[in-house]
Order: sequence, then structure tokens, then C-alpha cells
Amino acid sequence: MSRVPSRAEAKDSNRSRAQRPRRAGRIARAAVPDDFNARDKLLDTASRLMSDRHGLNVSLSEIAEHSGLNSALVKYYFGNKEGLMVALVERDAAVELQRVRHLLDLDISPSEKLRLHIAGIINGFYRRPYLNRLMHSLLDHREAETSSARTIARVFVRPLMELQAQLLEQGVKAGEFKPVEPVLFYVNLLGACDHLFNARYALQSIVGGAGVTDAVRERYIAHVYDIFINGLRNSMPAAAPAPKPARRATAKARR
Amino acid sequence: MSRVPSRAEAKDSNRSRAQRPRRAGRIARAAVPDDFNARDKLLDTASRLMSDRHGLNVSLSEIAEHSGLNSALVKYYFGNKEGLMVALVERDAAVELQRVRHLLDLDISPSEKLRLHIAGIINGFYRRPYLNRLMHSLLDHREAETSSARTIARVFVRPLMELQAQLLEQGVKAGEFKPVEPVLFYVNLLGACDHLFNARYALQSIVGGAGVTDAVRERYIAHVYDIFINGLRNSMPAAAPAPKPARRATAKARR
Repeated sequence: MSRVPSRAEAKDSNRSRAQRPRRAGRIARAAVPDDFNARDKLLDTASRLMSDRHGLNVSLSEIAEHSGLNSALVKYYFGNKEGLMVALVERDAAVELQRVRHLLDLDISPSEKLRLHIAGIINGFYRRPYLNRLMHSLLDHREAETSSARTIARVFVRPLMELQAQLLEQGVKAGEFKPVEPVLFYVNLLGACDHLFNARYALQSIVGGAGVTDAVRERYIAHVYDIFINGLRNSMPAAAPAPKPARRATAKARR
Repeated sequence: MSRVPSRAEAKDSNRSRAQRPRRAGRIARAAVPDDFNARDKLLDTASRLMSDRHGLNVSLSEIAEHSGLNSALVKYYFGNKEGLMVALVERDAAVELQRVRHLLDLDISPSEKLRLHIAGIINGFYRRPYLNRLMHSLLDHREAETSSARTIARVFVRPLMELQAQLLEQGVKAGEFKPVEPVLFYVNLLGACDHLFNARYALQSIVGGAGVTDAVRERYIAHVYDIFINGLRNSMPAAAPAPKPARRATAKARR
């Protein structure tokens, strides 16, 4: 996890040349501005443009124009457009993962943590309307078996899976959850959260209105939580209700 | 639903010119072969090429070459490549919807129907490794608010949602499920099923091996069913188990 740079780290104007991405050598040093926020500015601009457009169709020259920077800097910092997109996922992922780490440390029940986690994923995709599509697009071709998909796996999928495994373990220890395979749980939950945004145009034409409104999002968070919390809680699907272990409200959360 | 042509209908060599798609007028009638299976052959070829490649990157000239037909026929039957892709989703959707209709009529419990339905969706995406990505790609841009997204909504999303609403209602009547909003349930379940295939490259680099193997798929079906059946079954997430109405094994299925 130490390889996921936080936003603060990225802005650290004191970091040495050796700590910069390896691609940095590709263009002449003289072309690089003194402004060490340029990298972040490019990411911010790409993020804002894609958020405004609810889509990935943004060109390097647009990013350059809106950031007031030279598009050659994209090459300097990220290699190419895909490199910039991967870096953006990496930065967004770092923020979201930090939220989950914080959540795991809270002194609340694992069930409540699950509720906040589900709301966090759905609201995260809502705040960054390009993020789930960007990840799909970076993962969504055979060539993606190579570097971009591996990077997404390393900076987002694997660490989130590990954090969810900790949450599941806290729930099992507290007697609130039954054991499930964390990898399967990850796919199930992330798919459920992400599909609200994949399906939004179809939903719009069916339920009408402005698509994923705040009210729809709140109802969806409540629905997904309800399915998953009950799904995790019960071990006996058969007719007779299984005896449930009493909830230990004061169960010690595992770090 | 009557607007979803079955495969048999598409092959019906007796159908009149008036029943053909409106686009048919665009090229000279003389260019159309007597082989009324040409339309299906183009769809079959596109489906096979995309299945083989696990991707959407197939050109009209490749489809023409592999089908032994002239690529101008794509224009004749479908207008353009997107039209062909929409027609393919439409044909695949018709097959899958027919399976769900058949399932709803079976004399088995709603819980068992849900299990078969979940396996059906996941296995359907597995058999057509391009289908979920094709739907994402057709739905996944703002312009998609126009015709393609509306067609996908009409031929797949809405009818499947309606069939699931019937399944949910059967479950509630039989005392097996609690009531939930069908639209939210649709998004939750479809997202869960579809994400196994979206996430496969990331999974591959994490769990290793050949990606979505038969064993992984079986375990995933069991996991999703377990979460959803328990999620649907219990209305009281709190400590005390809620009294459940007895299961009526002979509950009349609603059409």
C-alpha cells in the first residue's frame, strides 16, 4: 500500500528528481516548469472536464488548454494519455482507500461500518462520474492484461479487497457476519455499487426524470445495504430460522 | 415485448418487405441476396468473432469476410455497425428473456427460481463474453440517451426488470421474500452478475490462473445466490429473528 502516493505526497515540492516517475527522462529538463503543482493541475483538469461531461472523451489539447499548461507536460509526467488516466485513478483510489482505512478504525459495529462503506463507494462513484467508466475502459481489453490493468489492480482492486477482508473479519469476530470469500464479496459488492452508474441511461428512460438523483442514490444505498447485511448475517437459508449469536455491541474492532 | 423478434421470426423467409426494418430502403433492392439467412449470418459472425476475441474490436470488413457476405449488407439490414451491434444485443436478449419466462412458469419455489435466474444471468454473460461490454459501450455515452440506449432499455432492461418484478412478487406471495423495489433489485443483481466479467483482468492478476474458470463461476453463483436469498428473506436486521410466515410449497405462480 505504501506505493499509493497520497495527494499531499504528490504536492510535496521538496521531493527529489529521483522520486519522480521513471518516464520523466523522456523530454528535456528545460521544458519542465518550476511549478511543481503542474502534475496535479493536469490531473485536476482532466478530472473536472470528465466530470462535467460525464464521459471520457477529453483530448490532451483540451486538458492543456483548460489547465493553462503545455500538453508536452503530459508526456513528461505520464508518458501518454493512458498514463494520465491511470495516474488519475491512482490518485482517486488513494483518497477512497484512505476513507476505508479510517472507517475500519472507528469504534462502531462492523454492520455500521459496512453501511458506511457501501455509502462511501456509491457516493465516491457519484462524486467522480468518470471513475467507474475509466476503470472499465482501462481494464476492458485483452491488452489490458498488461500494465494499466495491473496498475489498477495494484492501486485499487487489491488494497480495497484487503480492507474489505478486514471488515469481514471484524464482522465475523463480532458475531455479526458469517464467513464469506473476500474476493467473491468484493466482486459482488463493487458490481452492485458500480452498476447504478452504468445503468443510468437505461434507468432514465424507464423511471424517467433526471437519472441518479440524490433520492434514488439514497434509496439504492439503503437497498444494497439491506441485501448485503442480511445476506452476510444469516447462515441458514432453509425454512427454520437459525439461532443467531447475540450481537456484541462492544466487540473490539480489529486493526 | 412483442417488438423483440425471435430468431425464428428473423429467419422467416415469407415475411413481406413491409415487415423489414425501415432502413431497408437505403440501398438498391437488386443488391440484396435471395438468402434470407444473410441477416442472421452477419449477426452470427459478429457474435463469434467477438466471442473468440473476448472483445468488441471487430470491423465490418472482417464480419463480411468471415461470413462470406458483402459488407454493404450491414448497411442494408442494420444501417451501420452500431445498428448491427444493437440488433445482436436484441437477439441475445430475446433468447435470455425467453429462458426467464420459462423459469417463471416452472412449478418450483421462488427461491429456487432465483437461484436458477442468477446462474442464468452469469452463465449467459459467460457464453457471450462480449455481451456485457457491448451493452456498457452502447449505454455508456451521453449521446446514448438517444436511440441505442433506448433500444437496449426496451429490448433488455425493461422486460428483464418486469420479469424480475414477477419473480419477486411470487416470492412475496409464497412468504419467501420480503418486498423490495424491483428497479433497485434489478440494478443490484445485474451489477453483481456482470461485474465478475468486468473485473476479470484485475482478478486474474490478483488470484492468478486463467481468470473466470468454471470453478470460480460456480463459487460466484453460489455466493451471489446466498447473499441475495438471505438478503431478500429477512425483514428484521436487528438481533431478534423475525417470525416468518410458513412456506407455501404449492403457492400458485403468477404469470
